[in-house]
Amino acid sequence: MPPEVLKKAQDEMLSLGGIGMSVMEISHRSEHFAPILQAAENGIRELLQVPENYRILFLQGGASLQFSMIPLNFLKRSADYIVTGAWGEKAVKEAKKCGYVNEIYSTKTEGFRTVPEQDELNFSQTADFIHYCSNETIDGVEFKYDLDGKGIPVVCDASSNILSKPIDIEKYALIYAGAQKNIGPSGVTLVIIRDDLFGKVPSNLFSMLDYRAIAAHVSMLNTPNTWGIYLVSLVCRWLKEKGGVSAMQKINEEKAKILYDAIDASDGFYSGHAENAARSLMNVTFRLPTEDLEKQFVTEASANGFDGLKGHRSVGGIRASIYNAFPKEGVEALVEFMRDFTHKNG
Amino acid sequence: MPPEVLKKAQDEMLSLGGIGMSVMEISHRSEHFAPILQAAENGIRELLQVPENYRILFLQGGASLQFSMIPLNFLKRSADYIVTGAWGEKAVKEAKKCGYVNEIYSTKTEGFRTVPEQDELNFSQTADFIHYCSNETIDGVEFKYDLDGKGIPVVCDASSNILSKPIDIEKYALIYAGAQKNIGPSGVTLVIIRDDLFGKVPSNLFSMLDYRAIAAHVSMLNTPNTWGIYLVSLVCRWLKEKGGVSAMQKINEEKAKILYDAIDASDGFYSGHAENAARSLMNVTFRLPTEDLEKQFVTEASANGFDGLKGHRSVGGIRASIYNAFPKEGVEALVEFMRDFTHKNG
Repeated sequence: MPPEVLKKAQDEMLSLGGIGMSVMEISHRSEHFAPILQAAENGIRELLQVPENYRILFLQGGASLQFSMIPLNFLKRSADYIVTGAWGEKAVKEAKKCGYVNEIYSTKTEGFRTVPEQDELNFSQTADFIHYCSNETIDGVEFKYDLDGKGIPVVCDASSNILSKPIDIEKYALIYAGAQKNIGPSGVTLVIIRDDLFGKVPSNLFSMLDYRAIAAHVSMLNTPNTWGIYLVSLVCRWLKEKGGVSAMQKINEEKAKILYDAIDASDGFYSGHAENAARSLMNVTFRLPTEDLEKQFVTEASANGFDGLKGHRSVGGIRASIYNAFPKEGVEALVEFMRDFTHKNG
Repeated sequence: MPPEVLKKAQDEMLSLGGIGMSVMEISHRSEHFAPILQAAENGIRELLQVPENYRILFLQGGASLQFSMIPLNFLKRSADYIVTGAWGEKAVKEAKKCGYVNEIYSTKTEGFRTVPEQDELNFSQTADFIHYCSNETIDGVEFKYDLDGKGIPVVCDASSNILSKPIDIEKYALIYAGAQKNIGPSGVTLVIIRDDLFGKVPSNLFSMLDYRAIAAHVSMLNTPNTWGIYLVSLVCRWLKEKGGVSAMQKINEEKAKILYDAIDASDGFYSGHAENAARSLMNVTFRLPTEDLEKQFVTEASANGFDGLKGHRSVGGIRASIYNAFPKEGVEALVEFMRDFTHKNG
């Protein structure tokens, strides 16, 4: 979370804009909350250049609830799923509870080290939609392009790289993202959905799982996460002040390059998990020569103020997550630590 | 929200307990978040004397998502629903999308002014569960007793009166509550569930809608609303310092009495919506002689610092919500305003 955003939220915590009440106290139907919701929506719309025929929704339940909502709303005959990591796998698992899933591409047997090129993909002509995850946090692989569905609606889990760079929204029918990486705090899910999709939603779906019903109530079918949406509005303002997602992309590329260069210059002491072309700008995953050295690395890094470097238990190794709010100076300091560590243990 | 809680959250906003990171920045799997989740759970367990065979879960999506989850998890043959207000009606509407619902008691035709006595209720012997809402916010009617299901699992929406008084948890199979009235900020849903219910959950349910799966992951099947759970832990601490739910009940009874006494002493200028025996301690609903006077009342009250008094559009009139955090002095000031208003317009 950007320090400026936290500071602003702290300042306004007891009295939002001088009204004498906290964001957490005002009614979501009050005149005070309406401009906050509007600011969050406008912020996302401007930053990602979202066209007018797309709705911007703020839901709850994280990306994981979307794994269920997407097939519940749109899976009739079959859907094509592309699996390039752990999150894509989870999405498939939930979709299969609802209908027929074609796993048209998977890198599982190769250990989730890469992503397909557009022309490697063959979509089923009867697919209701194509689903993929544009950045796999655990494995550290990222799509460098907006998938073209060739007329089939594309649904994308962009939880961990949304707002990190410009994207071409019109390539997508639905993009969703848990807020807690680049958008705001946990407890908010962003959904950007093209409005022609509402016509495909079955009648009699549970209201809280029905995109059409939620959109009809402008994210307020019931009480939304008001505090979370407030912070989304502040993060959007911060991003605009920083130059928007193009400026973010430049910084993110610089940050990632510093880390990947350090890995590549380590004479094999550090070895990147992802193939070069698929290397994520958000999650840099790498291994050390032994698991013991990896443990030692995590412990010493933590003692030096670098937290959360332990790779997910399913893949092991090291993972440095360098989302928008993570400063370039932090990456430089980490690389310094990595060089020291190689020096002592290489 | 209690001012002391907001102040504490403000103080710790940039650095939780001196660790240099905000609650909104730490990983939900970190050593820093585990004690927060534990404190929230222990807080609820102590305050409501929740026995060991009940699990305490923190979900997302509000009580409204529970309207779907409950039948998805437990409705096989049929369920008995008691409807004493707008929220009970909504619960029925969602449950009917899933299976057969017996509306065994409804006060709809009488305008939702009362609640049944226990011995007025006849449960279907084949019901999978009985559902009721213990306090209807819009209508201002409240159950004064814990329903006895006579062997059938009782499921209760206690969104608007949980933690306002002691309850006998063992009467319930499942109690749920959106947090934003008495527990914390919006975006967190409390579920207290008896562990034998997990055996009734169908296999192959969507993970995020499956109580058993969520409980197996201790509310962390995916990233929970960490900030919201943190505030729940602070509210629990505040409640304990105030003497717990018995002390709250005493204060809430005093607060409500001041308001209802003012209504009853107004020679009919104010008329309570609920029948005396069902009067809610949390939501005091009343009418004025004309709709014009009601409009004037709301406008003048707002100018005097009393916000949110307009009754829900579905019932009209006035509604004073006096949850735990609303101070007795506020109620006294409101009654003073009401007397003045009568004086000038009665």
